Amino acid sequence: MTYIRNFLKRECDDLKSPDLWRAMCAEWLGLTFVTLFATGTGLYHKENPSSAPSSVNIALEAGFMIGCLVTVFGTISGGHVNPSITMGFAVTREITLVRSVLYIAAQSFGGICGAGLLYVLTPPGMHHGSLGLIMPGKDVTDMQALGAEAVIGFFLLFGTFAVIDKGRNDLQGSVPLMIGLMVSINVFFAFNISGGCMNPARNFGPAVITGKLDKIWLYWAGPLVGGAFGALLYDKIFSTKACRWCLGG
Amino acid sequence: MTYIRNFLKRECDDLKSPDLWRAMCAEWLGLTFVTLFATGTGLYHKENPSSAPSSVNIALEAGFMIGCLVTVFGTISGGHVNPSITMGFAVTREITLVRSVLYIAAQSFGGICGAGLLYVLTPPGMHHGSLGLIMPGKDVTDMQALGAEAVIGFFLLFGTFAVIDKGRNDLQGSVPLMIGLMVSINVFFAFNISGGCMNPARNFGPAVITGKLDKIWLYWAGPLVGGAFGALLYDKIFSTKACRWCLGG
Amino acid sequence: MTYIRNFLKRECDDLKSPDLWRAMCAEWLGLTFVTLFATGTGLYHKENPSSAPSSVNIALEAGFMIGCLVTVFGTISGGHVNPSITMGFAVTREITLVRSVLYIAAQSFGGICGAGLLYVLTPPGMHHGSLGLIMPGKDVTDMQALGAEAVIGFFLLFGTFAVIDKGRNDLQGSVPLMIGLMVSINVFFAFNISGGCMNPARNFGPAVITGKLDKIWLYWAGPLVGGAFGALLYDKIFSTKACRWCLGG
Amino acid sequence: MTYIRNFLKRECDDLKSPDLWRAMCAEWLGLTFVTLFATGTGLYHKENPSSAPSSVNIALEAGFMIGCLVTVFGTISGGHVNPSITMGFAVTREITLVRSVLYIAAQSFGGICGAGLLYVLTPPGMHHGSLGLIMPGKDVTDMQALGAEAVIGFFLLFGTFAVIDKGRNDLQGSVPLMIGLMVSINVFFAFNISGGCMNPARNFGPAVITGKLDKIWLYWAGPLVGGAFGALLYDKIFSTKACRWCLGG
Repeated sequence: MTYIRNFLKRECDDLKSPDLWRAMCAEWLGLTFVTLFATGTGLYHKENPSSAPSSVNIALEAGFMIGCLVTVFGTISGGHVNPSITMGFAVTREITLVRSVLYIAAQSFGGICGAGLLYVLTPPGMHHGSLGLIMPGKDVTDMQALGAEAVIGFFLLFGTFAVIDKGRNDLQGSVPLMIGLMVSINVFFAFNISGGCMNPARNFGPAVITGKLDKIWLYWAGPLVGGAFGALLYDKIFSTKACRWCLGG
Repeated sequence: MTYIRNFLKRECDDLKSPDLWRAMCAEWLGLTFVTLFATGTGLYHKENPSSAPSSVNIALEAGFMIGCLVTVFGTISGGHVNPSITMGFAVTREITLVRSVLYIAAQSFGGICGAGLLYVLTPPGMHHGSLGLIMPGKDVTDMQALGAEAVIGFFLLFGTFAVIDKGRNDLQGSVPLMIGLMVSINVFFAFNISGGCMNPARNFGPAVITGKLDKIWLYWAGPLVGGAFGALLYDKIFSTKACRWCLGG
Repeated sequence: MTYIRNFLKRECDDLKSPDLWRAMCAEWLGLTFVTLFATGTGLYHKENPSSAPSSVNIALEAGFMIGCLVTVFGTISGGHVNPSITMGFAVTREITLVRSVLYIAAQSFGGICGAGLLYVLTPPGMHHGSLGLIMPGKDVTDMQALGAEAVIGFFLLFGTFAVIDKGRNDLQGSVPLMIGLMVSINVFFAFNISGGCMNPARNFGPAVITGKLDKIWLYWAGPLVGGAFGALLYDKIFSTKACRWCLGG
Repeated sequence: MTYIRNFLKRECDDLKSPDLWRAMCAEWLGLTFVTLFATGTGLYHKENPSSAPSSVNIALEAGFMIGCLVTVFGTISGGHVNPSITMGFAVTREITLVRSVLYIAAQSFGGICGAGLLYVLTPPGMHHGSLGLIMPGKDVTDMQALGAEAVIGFFLLFGTFAVIDKGRNDLQGSVPLMIGLMVSINVFFAFNISGGCMNPARNFGPAVITGKLDKIWLYWAGPLVGGAFGALLYDKIFSTKACRWCLGG
């Protein structure tokens, strides 16, 4: 009973915190950029196939973008810019439930805005009927694509929780950049399997704009479930606070 | 009245500051290198099409170059090396009006020098009649190219102001390198739309040398307007000093 | 006699240390990811040859991955994630013999798990009958491949020991990222010679799953011997502690 | 007279310093790796043209390598690993004349060792008769190649002296990595003009092994002259100590 009362109090207090609305704007703006830039990087004019970008473009753009946005929005919203990151913070009780729901709503709306903006900024010959929507590769089954998205969601959240572990004092260099490199790795690995999305809101945008929603559940379920498991595994077993416990400290 | 007097005094004092002329030399030298290297990276001999660089070359060269030059010239001129960065500092009153005008003049002259130097250093078969001049992609309208340049100018300035926000103490790693990564992201995104210039002086050089000035207004207006808006938005709404105000601090 | 007793005591104490088992789990998990991601990055559907990744994908993925995993597991297991790194720590007496044997066993098992997971996650058209197994290039003799693997193992360990030298205070930025860049360099260099493996456990996985074990000794012997020599050379001749001795300090 | 006596004393003292011989070994080993890896990165089997590396491979390998070696050898020899860097330190009187001559000799011998090692490690079908020797691009005149090498030597030394300026306290992140990025930029720019060497000893090795010495003067003269000018320009005009003087400080 006290537990429920404390839980509700924490939720309500967070809802009244004056920076929540600005944080939501940051997450919305962040996902607008993530979606616009990630989808735009992959487009080329169909009559000019030699200008097609390679998977190196896609992977480096995605990683550098997350490195930059985590840096830029870090002090404003925490710099999640990915519903699976928000999910990781929610399951480890780092943020409130109400905040995680609001963040994911803002991120999803940002994804739609980013895809809409791309539609306006590019000629019809560049849309390819998909606006950069990520789909599973040739012959890849839904289960394989789901598995690949879960694996990269797991890796991203496990790694992110390791580099933001407050008990560590051995980390040098830019932590956001390290998270960005994990994103690049994930895209390199999964590019020909699931496409390497790992950010549900980024794929939600072009799916809504083009109406191709049949595979979108893969790109929501995989990263959210894999990510939640990765965050919990690090937090409960490998983190410095779990370490003190397992060592009897 | 007092406001105007203070404004003029600040402008005149800055004009007399002994490091202004050296700072202008730095901005001139910086843009000479930015233009020479950015345009040179894209050139290849037309009889040897397999040596054509990809957009990965262009994007990484541009980002690494800005990362290096902001580091190299940071203590000399502030390391703007881009008129839209100078514009961002001007509209947020970080530098004086007279300094911003002189910087942009020096940068523009540097762009011309860089393009001229490239003309001398490369054989006619590599010029392609354009010396690396950036133009909108196939079927891209002027409004779309202008919009894309405004978006990347906005992103560059918003991000730059976030990472140089003096009130933040959570930043690790190299800030200039982070700004360079934003430049790489912008090129990855806009390469097939507007070409991904975001630096008016860099495109001004080859336009002047080759005389192809008809589209050059896009590459001045887009980054300057988008950049000014991005700088103001961060400074007035998302910066740590705006934060203290919105939180009643 | 006292030497042997101390040696055995040190080995037994380490075997009883409560964090050994968690460290082994970390090395196992690390190699699962290294193998899954490194082999997966190189795969593409054979009916879609334009989606074939380039050596840039392979080299950057490998380097970024090691940079991330050394960061993530640094405080848990030391973040070796490579039997040749473990070998380097063993020959310089930084870790006990028993720990090095257990680490290499865990890493090898991780390699097999990673390759098995890739088999499950990809359609048959992407396996190419090899699951990303690294083999010597065209016309490259076994001795040349062995030599190339020994050279890159030497470079990796020599460089790693230089950047983790506790007597140095001039290092800035992320040390794990610097180790990752060495891995990328090694792949760039050896890609067309031996394939640029340098991690015996990473190649052991696909070799076991596909049964192609005839060349696998090259990828064990080369990095382990080259790496041991590189670690010893730095430790005994170039390290700051060797330096104090040679300078009579 | 006193000046000459002091000069000679400084030279002799340095010749007797106990770390000089180890520093020479480091420069020799460094250039062996620089040459082996830089030349090896560009090779592919002529019957397998799809395995040809792109200029992205060459540029990133070169930059990451210099970033790593400057880090690895920084406290042993200063981590020059390039005769034009040694020349820059010599003309600004940061090192003695005798040390600079010995370093350049050790570097040149390292270049030959690296090229010889590559010859042994690769099959004849990969040599292409050139072992990765850098030559000017199609239609590029000797003067243009010399100019391009001088420009990139200037940029490398000017930038290096800026990031190692002891009077600056605004630098974050890894300084050697920043120097490495300058190397990558130089390769991106000059790849289709002069080939982007900027390291005379690196090209000296394959030239000696293959006997193609007719263009090698370009790759000695360009970087050494351009580099010396870049080092002096930063040191005398833009450095913090020059700054104090010009500001009357």
